[in-house]
Amino acid sequence: MIENLRRYFPVLDWGRTYDRSAFSDDMIAAVIVTIMLIPQSLAYALLAGLPPEAGIYASIAPIVLYAIFGTSRALAVGPVAVVSLLTASAIGQVAEQGTAGYAVAALTLAFLSGGLLVLMGVFRLGFLANFLSHPVIAGFITASGILIATSQVKHILGVSAHGHTLPEMLGSIFSHLSEINWITVVIGVTATGFLFWVRKNLKPALLRMGTPALLADILTKTGPVVAVVATTLAVWAFDLGGKGVKIVGEVPQGLPPLTLPSVSPDLVSALLVPAILISVIGFVESVSVAQTLAAKKRQRIDPDQELIGLGAANLGAAFTGGYPVTGGFARSVVNFDAGAATPAAGAFTAIGLAFASIALTPLVYYLPNATLAATIIVAVLSLVDLSILKKTWGYARRDFAAVAATIFLTLGFGVEIGVASGVALSILLHLYKSARPHVAEVGLVPGTQHFRNIRRHKVDTDPTLVTLRVDESLYFANARFLEDLIQKRVTTGCSVRNVVLMFSAVNEVDYSALESLEAINHRLKDMDVRLHFSEVKGPVMDRLKRSHLPDDLNGRFFLSQYDAWAALITKGR
Amino acid sequence: MIENLRRYFPVLDWGRTYDRSAFSDDMIAAVIVTIMLIPQSLAYALLAGLPPEAGIYASIAPIVLYAIFGTSRALAVGPVAVVSLLTASAIGQVAEQGTAGYAVAALTLAFLSGGLLVLMGVFRLGFLANFLSHPVIAGFITASGILIATSQVKHILGVSAHGHTLPEMLGSIFSHLSEINWITVVIGVTATGFLFWVRKNLKPALLRMGTPALLADILTKTGPVVAVVATTLAVWAFDLGGKGVKIVGEVPQGLPPLTLPSVSPDLVSALLVPAILISVIGFVESVSVAQTLAAKKRQRIDPDQELIGLGAANLGAAFTGGYPVTGGFARSVVNFDAGAATPAAGAFTAIGLAFASIALTPLVYYLPNATLAATIIVAVLSLVDLSILKKTWGYARRDFAAVAATIFLTLGFGVEIGVASGVALSILLHLYKSARPHVAEVGLVPGTQHFRNIRRHKVDTDPTLVTLRVDESLYFANARFLEDLIQKRVTTGCSVRNVVLMFSAVNEVDYSALESLEAINHRLKDMDVRLHFSEVKGPVMDRLKRSHLPDDLNGRFFLSQYDAWAALITKGR
Repeated sequence: MIENLRRYFPVLDWGRTYDRSAFSDDMIAAVIVTIMLIPQSLAYALLAGLPPEAGIYASIAPIVLYAIFGTSRALAVGPVAVVSLLTASAIGQVAEQGTAGYAVAALTLAFLSGGLLVLMGVFRLGFLANFLSHPVIAGFITASGILIATSQVKHILGVSAHGHTLPEMLGSIFSHLSEINWITVVIGVTATGFLFWVRKNLKPALLRMGTPALLADILTKTGPVVAVVATTLAVWAFDLGGKGVKIVGEVPQGLPPLTLPSVSPDLVSALLVPAILISVIGFVESVSVAQTLAAKKRQRIDPDQELIGLGAANLGAAFTGGYPVTGGFARSVVNFDAGAATPAAGAFTAIGLAFASIALTPLVYYLPNATLAATIIVAVLSLVDLSILKKTWGYARRDFAAVAATIFLTLGFGVEIGVASGVALSILLHLYKSARPHVAEVGLVPGTQHFRNIRRHKVDTDPTLVTLRVDESLYFANARFLEDLIQKRVTTGCSVRNVVLMFSAVNEVDYSALESLEAINHRLKDMDVRLHFSEVKGPVMDRLKRSHLPDDLNGRFFLSQYDAWAALITKGR
Repeated sequence: MIENLRRYFPVLDWGRTYDRSAFSDDMIAAVIVTIMLIPQSLAYALLAGLPPEAGIYASIAPIVLYAIFGTSRALAVGPVAVVSLLTASAIGQVAEQGTAGYAVAALTLAFLSGGLLVLMGVFRLGFLANFLSHPVIAGFITASGILIATSQVKHILGVSAHGHTLPEMLGSIFSHLSEINWITVVIGVTATGFLFWVRKNLKPALLRMGTPALLADILTKTGPVVAVVATTLAVWAFDLGGKGVKIVGEVPQGLPPLTLPSVSPDLVSALLVPAILISVIGFVESVSVAQTLAAKKRQRIDPDQELIGLGAANLGAAFTGGYPVTGGFARSVVNFDAGAATPAAGAFTAIGLAFASIALTPLVYYLPNATLAATIIVAVLSLVDLSILKKTWGYARRDFAAVAATIFLTLGFGVEIGVASGVALSILLHLYKSARPHVAEVGLVPGTQHFRNIRRHKVDTDPTLVTLRVDESLYFANARFLEDLIQKRVTTGCSVRNVVLMFSAVNEVDYSALESLEAINHRLKDMDVRLHFSEVKGPVMDRLKRSHLPDDLNGRFFLSQYDAWAALITKGR
């Protein structure tokens, strides 16, 4: 009972040993993360097409709920770039940006992804996320980074444009070029340049000046805050808002409101597929961040409990005016580096943000959208990593095909088609390979009891004995392949008296494959050739014993291939 | 050049050695098959919802084309029960039965499946058919048999009914019960009873009376002809047509007409999915019949060339007033038993049927539909084999699930949903299993160089050495699973100094799995544990050598597990 409670409420675990030292560590981390999160939350809300306060709201309740249910001690949950892009793409299809329907759709999307995540956690379906292969994730994140950066160019130029694919966005920006606002361009380009400089050059400069590493790191991370403050002051001082520079404007002051997602069947069915995508992608992103950080401190992450933690966070977002959230890389690393000891750091961050949403929102009235766009561009361009194309090309063409297709389709047809095609393609290529398995004819490595491919190693063989090592589990997709192959091999060698199937690499024999093995046995019997098996694994043998094959077999089962060799080579006819 | 011609025109192969003895064998087989095919072709046309002559037409050009392009010497191509059902289901959705549009849709369906089959043959995609697992095929054929038999009950009762699923059909028959025609019932029930008796009891009776086996067999097969002649005479003699018994009526006299399939994009796109289904199912049915018969005479079937043969046959059907065809089990077995020596037997059958379509069609005017329904019911009930449920239940629950789902969904939701769900479920269950692989910890079987699971065998082990045999190829779906598992195993045994991954069952390491192995290597290095590999197969090693893993590895690659054991157990720290 207590064990179960602890499983579902990890807070009971770390809460018991919470002390003053952990408290002060957590407080310091919280202050740093709060300062960093304010501009980031506003920017990601902009990216999702939502009013700026939605970004702040989405950072408060979700952080607290994750602190209660999540297992990572450093993960910081809130709006992130890729999920914001997915949100914009999904709700852009059901509602007009800026309408009340748009905000309700965002709540509904958070509610649906939260519900799905909790369900997946309760039914321990976390392994499903593994079907997003590394190459597909890498390709998807890279393409998303390009899409997100491109989507922000309109804010830097001060033009209105739209679109969810690269050609749409570029076409739209190009056709609106005449509306360009040069003051906005100056602000946007300066902010972008400044942020790039901070990211690339400030930390080495500070370190050279003798600043301690941790402080240098934190100062570097405050770059966006500096850009926000400076450009806001400039807009206010020179009344640039009156000269066509788009600014954040009025942001409601106060704690997150209580909101309700819609349960209209039309909306739910339109958002269900995007919600699945957001939950799975958000989960994969979050778990990889959490595992990376946990490994550094020899802690463990329970992926199924993570699903519940993230699910609770999203449900929280749905009822407090937010939108879909997940564990973000940048904010989690800051949290970790700033020394967060327990999830309580997250709770303190939430308090900080709540204070900001009450007291600081009037201060962002003059903040130009171009500055927010600049912070997004600089943040996401670090996600773009085309080297995965080169790495997979060198390793295996199949993985390369998955990366290239994911990147190309995400850019050309949008995030949903891109990632769905990537997953489908990975699975198809995997099935294609296993449908035409590698089968090696093996012989004895002299002086050992070890058997190897006769084409790669110098081995002993016997003309009356054919030993085939089947390098794949046998199932419906490749069962007939083996039938054809044995038929061909045996009919071309007329002195063959014994065929041994070495099953060391066969991890499964399904019913289709069983029927094929029975057919092979009968055909070989007709040709006066005996069929044997060697090195059949326990689980496979257990299953075969339930069939007629062991009774009907005109040969034997050998424990090891060497036993088979010894028996058949000496007693062979 | 000649080789290529021979590949695509197998007729060039057997045609060269054709002699008088083969000619007379083929002629005898052709006469027998022709007589059997006449009622069968009429009946299957009725099942497909087409006018009776379509069944005859679909047996003429296709047979000749298959004789030119096909590789089986005994396969008889023409309308078959399951494909007729699929045709009725597909074109029932785009046209009203009895209209000109319905016949054009049938031609278009034959054209599309023919085109698809030829394309699959040219691109050698025959292996795709393997994704229809044996359990799915068995379940599908059984459910189709039940559906087909049920669909014929209305003809036996003389009522009009419709529907493509079992509940629809039963509901429709029930609601039309008041229209029942008792004379039709007498004809239908008598014919059905007679045919069952012929099938079950006539052959043993004839054999007891000393009839030669072959003749007894052929006489048994003429049962449908006897039923047709007797009931036609009865209808004619007592003018039962005037008493409400539905009869075949006017059938146009003459050779197959030249027809054109439609290329309307609407129709093509509506029929494309059914056409894919019909091609694949027809191909699987045909190839298994052909392989069974070929094995009996030590001949070989080339599945890719079979695709071209069947494709040509369907294209032929499309241009000569037919509908989709494939190699049928019943007719092929008769052809084989009657002694057909070459595909020329098929050509002679075509001549016989052409003669029938010119001269014999007036004779079937009084043939009652109930008799045709009786021949269908008796033929398809032999397809129904529920024992596959028991067999798969005993062997593996996963295969049982595939059979049960296929049967249930085919009966409840129609043939297309049934077979598509069966295939999808088989693939999902396969992926599910490989996503959570079996990993055995192994030790040395004393006195040998063979390693086995420590839980199943009495083996030698060493406390500082953990050897894990991974029983699955490593790919994206299970890469993370292995990471977790090794982490858990190594952290629970603090004396562990060496981990060996025995890769005898690993047939593939994709890029995702490579990254996991690198992560495992780094984590173990941090824990001061060395990671080794043994029995890595040639193709897997070739691939790993293209990565950084061999350089970064803090352990070694061993050719055999015994080498690893010998090196690590004696030199172990």
